[in-house]
Amino acid sequence: MRFVSVRNMARWIGAAGHERIITALIDDLEADFRRWPEFTKSPRFAAHSPLGVIELMPANDREHYAFKYVNGHPSNPGRGLQTVTAFGVLSDVDSGYPIFISEMTLLTALRTAAVSGLAARHLAPVNTTRAAFIGAGSQSEFQALAVRSVTRVNAVSVFDVDPLASKKFKRNLEPLGFEVNIASSAEDAVRDAGIITTCTADKANAIVLDDVAVRPGVLINGIGGDCPGKTELDPRTVQRARVVVEFEPQTRIEGEIQNLAPDFPVTELWTLLERPKSARTQPGEVVVFDSVGFAVEDFTALRYVSRAVLGTPFEENIDLVAEPDDPRDLFGMIPAPVPIG
Amino acid sequence: MRFVSVRNMARWIGAAGHERIITALIDDLEADFRRWPEFTKSPRFAAHSPLGVIELMPANDREHYAFKYVNGHPSNPGRGLQTVTAFGVLSDVDSGYPIFISEMTLLTALRTAAVSGLAARHLAPVNTTRAAFIGAGSQSEFQALAVRSVTRVNAVSVFDVDPLASKKFKRNLEPLGFEVNIASSAEDAVRDAGIITTCTADKANAIVLDDVAVRPGVLINGIGGDCPGKTELDPRTVQRARVVVEFEPQTRIEGEIQNLAPDFPVTELWTLLERPKSARTQPGEVVVFDSVGFAVEDFTALRYVSRAVLGTPFEENIDLVAEPDDPRDLFGMIPAPVPIG
Repeated sequence: MRFVSVRNMARWIGAAGHERIITALIDDLEADFRRWPEFTKSPRFAAHSPLGVIELMPANDREHYAFKYVNGHPSNPGRGLQTVTAFGVLSDVDSGYPIFISEMTLLTALRTAAVSGLAARHLAPVNTTRAAFIGAGSQSEFQALAVRSVTRVNAVSVFDVDPLASKKFKRNLEPLGFEVNIASSAEDAVRDAGIITTCTADKANAIVLDDVAVRPGVLINGIGGDCPGKTELDPRTVQRARVVVEFEPQTRIEGEIQNLAPDFPVTELWTLLERPKSARTQPGEVVVFDSVGFAVEDFTALRYVSRAVLGTPFEENIDLVAEPDDPRDLFGMIPAPVPIG
Repeated sequence: MRFVSVRNMARWIGAAGHERIITALIDDLEADFRRWPEFTKSPRFAAHSPLGVIELMPANDREHYAFKYVNGHPSNPGRGLQTVTAFGVLSDVDSGYPIFISEMTLLTALRTAAVSGLAARHLAPVNTTRAAFIGAGSQSEFQALAVRSVTRVNAVSVFDVDPLASKKFKRNLEPLGFEVNIASSAEDAVRDAGIITTCTADKANAIVLDDVAVRPGVLINGIGGDCPGKTELDPRTVQRARVVVEFEPQTRIEGEIQNLAPDFPVTELWTLLERPKSARTQPGEVVVFDSVGFAVEDFTALRYVSRAVLGTPFEENIDLVAEPDDPRDLFGMIPAPVPIG
C-alpha cells in the first residue's frame, strides 16, 4: 500500500510549490464538482466529546472510495497540540482494497484553501485587489494563497485576537510577495476588502465581525463555522446574504446557517459552475460561502496527491493490508506455535 | 504514532499464540460488553457497490475512540484477493489525536472468533463435545479455536462447497490437536454437533443448512450473514429460534433477521452476561447468535493489541500525524520556495 508521510508531504509541497498545488487543486475541485451527481455523498460521521469532535468523511464514485479521519479540538493549542489533525485513505471500489494512505493535516489546509479559491473564482467581486483575514491560525496563509491565485488580490489585512498569530501570518506571507497589513480590529481589517475570509477556531456561536462592517458586494468565505454550536458570522449578515454551500444536508447541521430557519434558501456551489464567468447575480449583493468542508473535496485532494507523487521519492510502501499466498488461508500466515496433538 | 504491520501482527500472533490471544480477547470482550451503555454506538457506515461493500465502524467510550475500515467483496478470491481486508485506528478522545494504527485483517478474524466464543461461553449446550463448521474460508480455523477455548469441544466436522477449502481447514487444525471430519454435506456435518458455525461468504440470500437438519438444543453461530442481501440460514430456523444479537439496530439491517418481521423479538448479547452461568432458558431451545460484527468489538481488539505490543519489537512508528513546532504554524513546516518579493 502506498504511503505519504508528514515529512514527505511537507517536502513534496515545498518542491512542487504550495501556490502551484493550490491552483491545480482548484481546477481538480472544479472538475469533480461539475460531476457532483456521480458521487455517493453523506454528511460526515461525527463523534462529539466535551473537548472536541472526531469525524469520518467518506465519499466515492464508481472507481474510487476515499475517507478522511479528522479531529477538531479548539483547546489543543493550549497544550502544544494542533486544533486539527487528519489523515486519509483512497481505495479501489471494485476490490475494496485500500491503495493509498496519506497524512492530511497539511493536505487539508491546502484543499480547504482551494475550496475557498473555487468559490472566489466564481463569486468574488470583479477587480477586487484587497482581501481580509479574520483569524490567523494554521489555515490562514493557505487561504491567502488561494484567494490570490484566482483574483487580482495582493494586499491583505489580517486581524487575530492573538497579535503573535498576526505576526506569524505577516512573516510567512511577505516573502511570497504579499503586502500585509496587521489590523487593530476585525472591522479595521475588512475596510476596503472585497473578499473577507473568517477562519477562527473557537467552538462557540461567536460573532467575529459585526454586520455593520460588511459592505455591499463583498464575498465572505466563512471557514471556521463548521460544527454544531461553532459559528463565527453575525446572523444578520448571513440573513441578508446570498448563501452558497457545499452539500446542503451537512451545512444545515454544521454551517453558519444552523443559526437560521431550516428553510432559509441556499445554493449548492456545484450548481454555479456551469455559468460562463461570474456566478454573481447583482454587483451589490453580499455573498456568504458557508464552507464546512466536505468529503468530496478530500476525495479530490487524495486523488490529486496520489497521482502527483506516484513513482517519486515522496511516497513509501506500508505493510497495512494482508496479502496471504492463498486468499482463503489467512490462518496459514501465522507462524505455527508448538503442536499439541 | 504507533503502528502494527501485517508482518508484525502475524509474528505477534505466532509468538503469543492464537489460542491464548482468542481466550484473552473473549475476556476483554466480556468486560466491555458488560459496560455496554458507556459506549457511543451506531450502525456501521456502508458504501455498497456492485461487487461489494466498504465500511467504516466507529465506537468510543470517554477515553478512546476506535474505528475500523473493512471491505467485503465475495468475488475477490476468484482474482487472488481476499474477501475481507481491514485496518483500524485507536485515538485519544480528549485530544482527537490518533495514537495507534494496526492491520486488522488478521485481527478481525481473531476478534470475530472471540465474539463467537463469548456467545458460546454463555449459550452453548452443556457438555457438548462436537462442533460443525459450514464454510471453511479464512475465518473458519479461528472460529474453531474460539469454540474449543470455552467448551469441551475437540471434535469438529466441516463442510465447504470447495473440497480444497475443507482440506486446508483440516491441515491447519489437526496439528493443534483437533479431530477433524470432512463431511459430504452441511446436513452430514451438523449431525451430533452441539454448536454449528456458519461462515460462508456469498453475497446472496443463501440457505446453507436446511431447517430439518437443525436439532433441538443447538447453538448456531451465524457469522456469514452480515450485510443487506447476504444471509445464510434457513428463515424457518431463525423464526423458531431464540435470536441473540450484538447491536439490534445494526443487526436488523445486516443480520439473518433482515428476512423476518421488523418486530421479531431478539435479545442483545450484553444483557445476558450478568447471569451466573448459562444464559439458556430451556435445554431444548435452538439459539441463533446472529453475529454481524460490531464496532465495539474492534474497539476491544485494538485496545488489547495496543497494550499487548507496547514497547515490544512488534510495533513501529509511523509518521502520519503532523507535529509542527508551533501548532498554529502549519505553514512553517513547508520548506520555502524561492521568494518572489
